[in-house]
Amino acid sequence: MAAHILLIHCPDRPGLIAAVTGVLFQHQLNIISNGEFVERTHNHFFMRTEFSGAVDLVHLEKDLREALPTDVIIRLSAQRNKEIVVLASKEHHCLADLLVRHYYGELGATIKAVISNHPLLEPLVKKFDIPFICLPHDGVDRNQHENSLAKHIDQFQPEFIVLAKYMRILSAGFVARYPNQIINIHHSFLPAFVGAKPYAQAYERGVKIIGATAHFVNDNLDEGPIIAQNVIPVNHTHNAKEMAQAGRNVEQIVLANALGLVFDERVFVHGNKTIIFD
Amino acid sequence: MAAHILLIHCPDRPGLIAAVTGVLFQHQLNIISNGEFVERTHNHFFMRTEFSGAVDLVHLEKDLREALPTDVIIRLSAQRNKEIVVLASKEHHCLADLLVRHYYGELGATIKAVISNHPLLEPLVKKFDIPFICLPHDGVDRNQHENSLAKHIDQFQPEFIVLAKYMRILSAGFVARYPNQIINIHHSFLPAFVGAKPYAQAYERGVKIIGATAHFVNDNLDEGPIIAQNVIPVNHTHNAKEMAQAGRNVEQIVLANALGLVFDERVFVHGNKTIIFD
Amino acid sequence: MAAHILLIHCPDRPGLIAAVTGVLFQHQLNIISNGEFVERTHNHFFMRTEFSGAVDLVHLEKDLREALPTDVIIRLSAQRNKEIVVLASKEHHCLADLLVRHYYGELGATIKAVISNHPLLEPLVKKFDIPFICLPHDGVDRNQHENSLAKHIDQFQPEFIVLAKYMRILSAGFVARYPNQIINIHHSFLPAFVGAKPYAQAYERGVKIIGATAHFVNDNLDEGPIIAQNVIPVNHTHNAKEMAQAGRNVEQIVLANALGLVFDERVFVHGNKTIIFD
Amino acid sequence: MAAHILLIHCPDRPGLIAAVTGVLFQHQLNIISNGEFVERTHNHFFMRTEFSGAVDLVHLEKDLREALPTDVIIRLSAQRNKEIVVLASKEHHCLADLLVRHYYGELGATIKAVISNHPLLEPLVKKFDIPFICLPHDGVDRNQHENSLAKHIDQFQPEFIVLAKYMRILSAGFVARYPNQIINIHHSFLPAFVGAKPYAQAYERGVKIIGATAHFVNDNLDEGPIIAQNVIPVNHTHNAKEMAQAGRNVEQIVLANALGLVFDERVFVHGNKTIIFD
Repeated sequence: MAAHILLIHCPDRPGLIAAVTGVLFQHQLNIISNGEFVERTHNHFFMRTEFSGAVDLVHLEKDLREALPTDVIIRLSAQRNKEIVVLASKEHHCLADLLVRHYYGELGATIKAVISNHPLLEPLVKKFDIPFICLPHDGVDRNQHENSLAKHIDQFQPEFIVLAKYMRILSAGFVARYPNQIINIHHSFLPAFVGAKPYAQAYERGVKIIGATAHFVNDNLDEGPIIAQNVIPVNHTHNAKEMAQAGRNVEQIVLANALGLVFDERVFVHGNKTIIFD
Repeated sequence: MAAHILLIHCPDRPGLIAAVTGVLFQHQLNIISNGEFVERTHNHFFMRTEFSGAVDLVHLEKDLREALPTDVIIRLSAQRNKEIVVLASKEHHCLADLLVRHYYGELGATIKAVISNHPLLEPLVKKFDIPFICLPHDGVDRNQHENSLAKHIDQFQPEFIVLAKYMRILSAGFVARYPNQIINIHHSFLPAFVGAKPYAQAYERGVKIIGATAHFVNDNLDEGPIIAQNVIPVNHTHNAKEMAQAGRNVEQIVLANALGLVFDERVFVHGNKTIIFD
Repeated sequence: MAAHILLIHCPDRPGLIAAVTGVLFQHQLNIISNGEFVERTHNHFFMRTEFSGAVDLVHLEKDLREALPTDVIIRLSAQRNKEIVVLASKEHHCLADLLVRHYYGELGATIKAVISNHPLLEPLVKKFDIPFICLPHDGVDRNQHENSLAKHIDQFQPEFIVLAKYMRILSAGFVARYPNQIINIHHSFLPAFVGAKPYAQAYERGVKIIGATAHFVNDNLDEGPIIAQNVIPVNHTHNAKEMAQAGRNVEQIVLANALGLVFDERVFVHGNKTIIFD
Repeated sequence: MAAHILLIHCPDRPGLIAAVTGVLFQHQLNIISNGEFVERTHNHFFMRTEFSGAVDLVHLEKDLREALPTDVIIRLSAQRNKEIVVLASKEHHCLADLLVRHYYGELGATIKAVISNHPLLEPLVKKFDIPFICLPHDGVDRNQHENSLAKHIDQFQPEFIVLAKYMRILSAGFVARYPNQIINIHHSFLPAFVGAKPYAQAYERGVKIIGATAHFVNDNLDEGPIIAQNVIPVNHTHNAKEMAQAGRNVEQIVLANALGLVFDERVFVHGNKTIIFD
């Protein structure tokens, strides 16, 4: 029997957990795992419940709404693969990792298409029988290019858009079309080295650790809610190119971890932060 | 208002969370944080709840027992400093760390005494105005030594006994007197390098990572439930002595982390494992 | 101009570095990087030098031999891709990682063939146009199977044989054919959990960290010289299967790192340990 | 016999290693360890050699100068404890760690005095019989305060000044008096969260990793050459205060590691970066 996931958030008040788990108990559902968190600055309550059992979702949602205050946001769904579109440019490492995981059914998502502003990665994508769409940006203005990009994306109705080293900046207008749906892997330990060429910056600054950050994209470049980060040590013998090389393994793993959390509905976005039940 | 901690475990069945949180809600108590876990091999349920509010503990415990099946183990208490005795031998690093944290009220415990089989660490302990008891083991048989040790420990009625690099093996009989009360820091990444001289073993084996393990002590040497572990990289340039030196920082931090978890009542012992709500 | 690599080892004595660098200077060669290490237990000297410049290797080697004591082992070669054969069984993650790195010229080696005891991974290997040889072991005795395996390997004359999750134990006789040429990725932090099913063992023991180890294979199972290790944290919520899943990223990266070091001639094997100039 | 350390740097050219090791060989000195590095951007050569043997330092230095080009910087000295002054404010964790290491002869330095702008840490310092000098800054202008600070420091003629959580900004003028002699521990993973309250900033940004940075102090706040960095994971359950708490262990260890490297003369400062032979 497939598991279901219940996500709830609302201003905190006493009795919320009792109310939710009481309704699940009445429906004879079995809680597999349960997480709660209260964000103290805004006193906001978050709860994620995985449960199994024969369930009438419409009836259950109705009973939950009746048992809970009216300002509670409820999201109730069966666990299933998400549908995504991947954007990439010229670097293959993150994309190849996603393609292999997808091929073996480990991604938690179906890749509907890969869209790139360069033709370079087409042979790789073709090996895995995924549609590859090339949208060069040369001689096209940003607006036009983004409109074309959006049109191609929208035909697949993806739940998430994954930027797997997509090296074009997306406008605020484009990003606003897909709120909390775009996930980027940034090749630095944000907020250090915001912007372009973070490895060159890291080399210039002489840091002893470099990292990668997976985050939702909002309208401020490199400033959306962070989902996952990781780091590796470097030293004075690494030049900027070698730092980039060393950083690729980290980028690949951080992106895969972040996607695993998002596709499994473990991530709440709250203001500019994430609440993660892992 | 001080927080209270409720620990519950029992065979898993539906409705447990609803029952517990329902009683807390009736008592108008506010849940600060809540954790649940079901161990799937034995289908055993664990729950830790921190709550605040004006509470009649006797009344609350009575209502919980009535609301819950009879095989549920309930532990209900106010959050407070634990009382401990520390055992050490000749190495100072873990002991000094505990003494400094204790001095600044960061340990979550009161050190009633330090007992050692050597006089070496007395000057350090005296600086921090903690009673130091020296029980040399030369010319004393193990039984006698342990009886004397137990007598000295028992006068302090400690809730936990911390082995901060105590280098004498404790007999099964001694350990059985203090079930799940003795916490040891072992200078290796258990179960690698069980037994004496783990750094010498690590050097011989040519490992590239060494570590430390904090665990409850049971009657099998180095085999009790693990609470915390951490590691650091080493390489061929480290000899056994340098590995030991590098390992000390890790030992110190792993022990401090483990004690923080235990003293904050975040650790359930279940068979030979720990369930930790952190 | 391509770089050259000079590897030297011998019993330690004064003047070795001066002698070697003196000869390189006479040949007007430019040292790019230089590493020396003296293993103190056996007082053995190791040196790795990367240099560039117009070089007559025969003449250079002759001059080095004349300048150095007769017991010095000298290995002098141009930097180049190694030729390897990869052995795998049913798990794809390490193999896929090698295939992608190979496809993009990042492996530092040419994969001459993939040999497996199962047909499962053939479609993946075929995508990357690498010969796939399936040698099932059902109904074949170990001796026969290994003879067949050796025959197939030997036709490619590989410099290294990479066990990318090859789940058959190799006999001492087989291993002896390829001294310091077989590299294995073991799915545990050796020497913890030697042998089969390390993740099941790790789960049983309740460890808080798991890891992976890349090592040369000698005749004692899981006991050859360690090249690289890495770890990740786990907790009580991970069952053995989830630990395995979490461990795969680590295995993949540890193997890739180890191969990078070996293929770049940065690894000396000395007894049961490695000396690594990274 | 005590070891000696030879540090050399100069524009790179062929033959440097041969020249240096040749002179050491003529003096019948035994190289214990040797490290070289060429920084490729400016083509600058660095070399650190530890050697033992009966040595006439004046004669050796003369021979080295004769064997080497005139632009070579040579620093030749016996390995010995450095003399330092520690500056602190109100936080005890880094200072306590230094005091304990010092007390047990593990610091590689003699603490001549602790100077603070607050009286709070005096009792701790007194336990270890180190002079404590309190220089309150209330009602004193920055210039006056720094002059007084410099006067007190200078009476000890320290080789290094360690800022162990000294929370006053030092002026460019003050810093210029002690070039490459002041070492600071900054409570963030620089260059993220430059400036005050980095943990508050980290909490606001919702990062998943925090860190600490030990660096030489130059006239730009938080911008001197980085010596060591390390990190730990955090998550949404940590508020700014808990992040600070979690960060203290890291700060303490990063500072101790950095000082170990500096006091052992393993660190070259080159522009705004460090070259470290560890």
